[in-house]
Order: sequence, then C-alpha cells, then structure tokens
Amino acid sequence: MPKTANFSGVIAPVLTPFGEDGGPDVERFIEHCHWLMAEGCTGLAPFGTTSEGNSLGVDERMELLEELVDDGMEPEALMPGTGTCSLADAVVLTKHAVDLGCGGVLMLPPFYYKAPSEDGLFRFFAQAIEEVADDRLKVYLYHIPPVAQVGFSIPLIGRLLKEFPDTVVGLKDSSGDWSNTAAILAAYPGFEVFPGSEVFLLDGLKNGAAGCISATCNVSAAAIRNVYDNWQGADAQKLQDGITALRKAIQAFPMIPALKALIAHYRRDPEWANVRPPFTALPAAEADKVIRTLADAHGFKLDFAKAA
Amino acid sequence: MPKTANFSGVIAPVLTPFGEDGGPDVERFIEHCHWLMAEGCTGLAPFGTTSEGNSLGVDERMELLEELVDDGMEPEALMPGTGTCSLADAVVLTKHAVDLGCGGVLMLPPFYYKAPSEDGLFRFFAQAIEEVADDRLKVYLYHIPPVAQVGFSIPLIGRLLKEFPDTVVGLKDSSGDWSNTAAILAAYPGFEVFPGSEVFLLDGLKNGAAGCISATCNVSAAAIRNVYDNWQGADAQKLQDGITALRKAIQAFPMIPALKALIAHYRRDPEWANVRPPFTALPAAEADKVIRTLADAHGFKLDFAKAA
Repeated sequence: MPKTANFSGVIAPVLTPFGEDGGPDVERFIEHCHWLMAEGCTGLAPFGTTSEGNSLGVDERMELLEELVDDGMEPEALMPGTGTCSLADAVVLTKHAVDLGCGGVLMLPPFYYKAPSEDGLFRFFAQAIEEVADDRLKVYLYHIPPVAQVGFSIPLIGRLLKEFPDTVVGLKDSSGDWSNTAAILAAYPGFEVFPGSEVFLLDGLKNGAAGCISATCNVSAAAIRNVYDNWQGADAQKLQDGITALRKAIQAFPMIPALKALIAHYRRDPEWANVRPPFTALPAAEADKVIRTLADAHGFKLDFAKAA
Repeated sequence: MPKTANFSGVIAPVLTPFGEDGGPDVERFIEHCHWLMAEGCTGLAPFGTTSEGNSLGVDERMELLEELVDDGMEPEALMPGTGTCSLADAVVLTKHAVDLGCGGVLMLPPFYYKAPSEDGLFRFFAQAIEEVADDRLKVYLYHIPPVAQVGFSIPLIGRLLKEFPDTVVGLKDSSGDWSNTAAILAAYPGFEVFPGSEVFLLDGLKNGAAGCISATCNVSAAAIRNVYDNWQGADAQKLQDGITALRKAIQAFPMIPALKALIAHYRRDPEWANVRPPFTALPAAEADKVIRTLADAHGFKLDFAKAA
C-alpha cells in the first residue's frame, strides 16, 4: 500500500528572532513565517538547527508554536523540531505538536552521549512513538552528523521503517554527503527524503527526493521553489546552478548570524540580527560584507513589501 | 580575599534508577543517595553524565531534586547538573536548584552547536548568571569534551572567574587529561577543581584539587574517601593504586550499564539495571562478567546492610 506524501517541496527551518530581553520574539517569528510561505515555501520546520531550536527551552518552543497556529498558520504545513537528548522532553514536545495538528515532526536523535548503539537509538524512537501513542504522528528523522555527531545509519532507518511504517515517514539528510542521500533514496523508495541543502535539490528530485529543507530557504525560498517547480524543464540545470552559487556564497559566512544580518538589513530592523548564546551576532563590518558580497555577485536582495 | 570552599572531597554523580514504566524511580533514587552519603561521599551531583542527566526531562529533574530535599537530604551537599543546550532551560533548572538551597550547580556548556566561540560561551554563562540573579548561586563548570565536545578553555575559565569571582567557584575536569587539570590548578589557585576520575585524586590533592567527582563513586565511595582522608599519610600511594586499579577494571565495561548491573546484583533488585535509551542494559552474560571480574580480581562487593 503506497503511502501518501505528507510533505514535499521547499521547507524552511525557520529562524527564531530574539527580542531585546533575550527571549524569542513572537511577533517577528509569526511575521517571518507568513513571509516565508508567501515567498514559496511549501512548509516550515521551526526549531531546527538554523532556528537555534536547541537553544530554546521546552516551554518557549511550545509557546511559539501555539502562537503561530493561533495566528492562522495551517498546522499541516508545520514540521517542528521535537527531538532532544531527553526522551521525556522529546515526548512532551512531540505530543504537543501532534495535538496542535502539525503535519509532522523533525526528530534529532539523542545527541549527548556519543556512539550510542543502533539498538539504543532504535529503542529511543520506539519508546517515544509508543509514549506519544497517536496515529496522527508522522516522524521525520533528522540526520545531521556534522552537528549532532549522532546520526541514523541506513540499517537503523530500515529497522524504524519496518517497525513503524505509518509513523516514520521521512528523513532530512544534512550530512552534506550526496552519496549518503542517494543510498537512502535507493534503499527506501517512497520514503520522504529531504536533502539538507538546496545544492542537492535537482539531483535529489531526479532520484526521488521529496524536496529540500535548507537553512537558506529563510532568504531564498522563491529561487529554490523555482527549481522545485521546474526540475523537469529545459532550464533546470541553469536554475540549479544559480541557487547552488548563492548557497555557497552564503555558507562562506557563519550561517545563522549571516541569515539574520540579511533579514535585519532588508527589513531595516536591527533587532532581527540578535542571536542567542552560544552564537554571537556578526560584527557590523562582517554583516556589511555579507550584504555587499551577495548583492554584488548575485544581485541578492530581500523584498518584504508583499508581506507588509 | 580568599574564598571559602563550598565543596570538597568525594562527590558522586548519582545514578538515576528507572522503574518498569521507564520513568525515574524516586524511591530507589533517594535510597541510593542516602547510601552514598553513608559510604563516605561528602556531596552528591545528581543529573551528571553518569546520572543519564541529559536523558531526563526538565520536569523530571526538578521533581527528583525536590523529593530528595523533602526527604531530608541536606541541600548544601547537592550539586545538581543544570547545564543544557538551551539557555532558558538552564536558567529554569539553576533557579530551581538555588531556591532549594543546593550548595552549587554543575553546568555543562551548551553542547549542540560545535566549535562555539569563546565569546559565545562566555555570554551563555554570563546571561544565565544574570538571569538567575541570586547571590547564593555557586557555579561549577563541567568540562567533559570527550562527551559534550564543547568545553572550557583555560582563558575562558579565567574570563568567567574574573567577571564572576563569587559565583563561578569551581570546575569538574572530565577531560581525562591530567595535564589539563594540572594547568587549571596552576593557573587559578583557590578555584575548586575536581578531576572527573579518582585515578587523578592523589595527584590532584597534591596540586591543590578539592577532591574528585567520579562515576565510580557510585560503587566505591568508601575506598575513594579513604584516599581523600589519608592523602598525606605513608600509605597514600598504595591506597591510590588500589582505587586506580578498581576504576580501570570497571571502565573496561560500558560504565553506566555496568555500575547499574553491580548495584542490581548486590541489592538483589534486577530493576536497578534499567537504563534509559539511548543506553541499553548489559546482557546477562556481560553483567555476570562485570560482577565476577571485579569480585575475583579486586575482592569487590557492595554492602547495603548499613542503609537497610
């Protein structure tokens, strides 16, 4: 029985704005979410790595999500990050997201203890799924070994898919290793695989990927969506080359502070540049360099008129 | 003005027992804490690495701590782990511990994002200390790069000490690198440094360390305390050699499941062997091997009679 796709297309791991008091800024967060959807995102993944999600408290995450849904965002379009080192907190966050009607959740493995056994990771997810105990739950595994250090091997993915075929439905692959993405796509047809960078979008789509979930969707969703919509067209490679070049230009800078500096600049809203420790905002000269480099080499700018 | 020592001696990062339902077992936890103090621990550090602390939820940690203090444990003897990836949760846990009267807190750095800047880590602690805003707060930095990956450089320790001389009072060094411990002791006299293994206890004490905070204090506190009490005596090196040999025998096995297997065996309480994912309990044959190896080579056994 083929599964129906739950998510596809261009998904932004939404940046989290912080106010002067250091807390998450609900109003800017909601505004940014609506703008991202207007720019062409097909879904949003709040509380991912780019969102400084692990720098947020359990209560902060739940409050932001509630406010967003209360404000009218379709919960089906939301795939919040709910994986934590703690099984208990992961269950609390996941239940909360399911109860709000979120289309899915993006779950990191527990990442404090290094080199856990495959069996230990399997049991973490099995126990989380059993404790949430809700048929509406759709889990996307979040594979990001460069940051989390702990990841999902191909056999572990297979074991979870076999045990929970209606619940474990996809994976974000932020390994940065196309051969790993290709191997997962080849091993598990129908599994919703999202490369963690638009650099792999066209190759991914040609091999059955569902789209991409990428940090830079926060500032270039329209161009990425254009590749997604036209991947079988004559111009596909040319469009892909454009988003690849832009991505590479952005990732030459510290990603999260650079994305926030861009939004702060084009929104003329300096507070948008705030980050939470352990990150630090870009110094003014560095922020200027990001803005100028992208504008000069890629004609990059952001337009917030349509969201006004 | 010399600071008064807040903690010294033999501190156990208390194992967390889990019940059949997967939740922390309050009764066994309290019983184990009292037994550890009776065995000679001078303090307890619940929710450390050995405690599977990062596998516990924010609420679970607070409840266990409250129950322990309600049961009569002196809060001055407690140094709970309160560092998390999230500044918000770290503040909640730290405030809670201070309000309960805990003698100190043991704070991991935020460990999700890798290679944070020194400035970013400084700001994390500065912001946490400012948000807790309580003169009673005593912070012990938890340096455990083999697990957390993120740690405290010697300049960062100096910067925190200089900015918060009455609050940042010590450090647990679980680097496993004696040269690092020695360098911290040499750089900051009066700073309360605890090696993370009793292997370095005698060398530490000779160089101004305050004691040790070690996983194996969960099963061998009496012998470790004996070294602490007699480190200037004629037998000191011989006593040290004994606890070093036992530590090395235990750490040949997966530490947390092995410690729990030992307690389960000598308490005749199989449930004590439960661990939370991503850990898995030792298979019966492995558990038997730990018990037999230690008994045969070291005459090791645990006596719970005095706690009965």
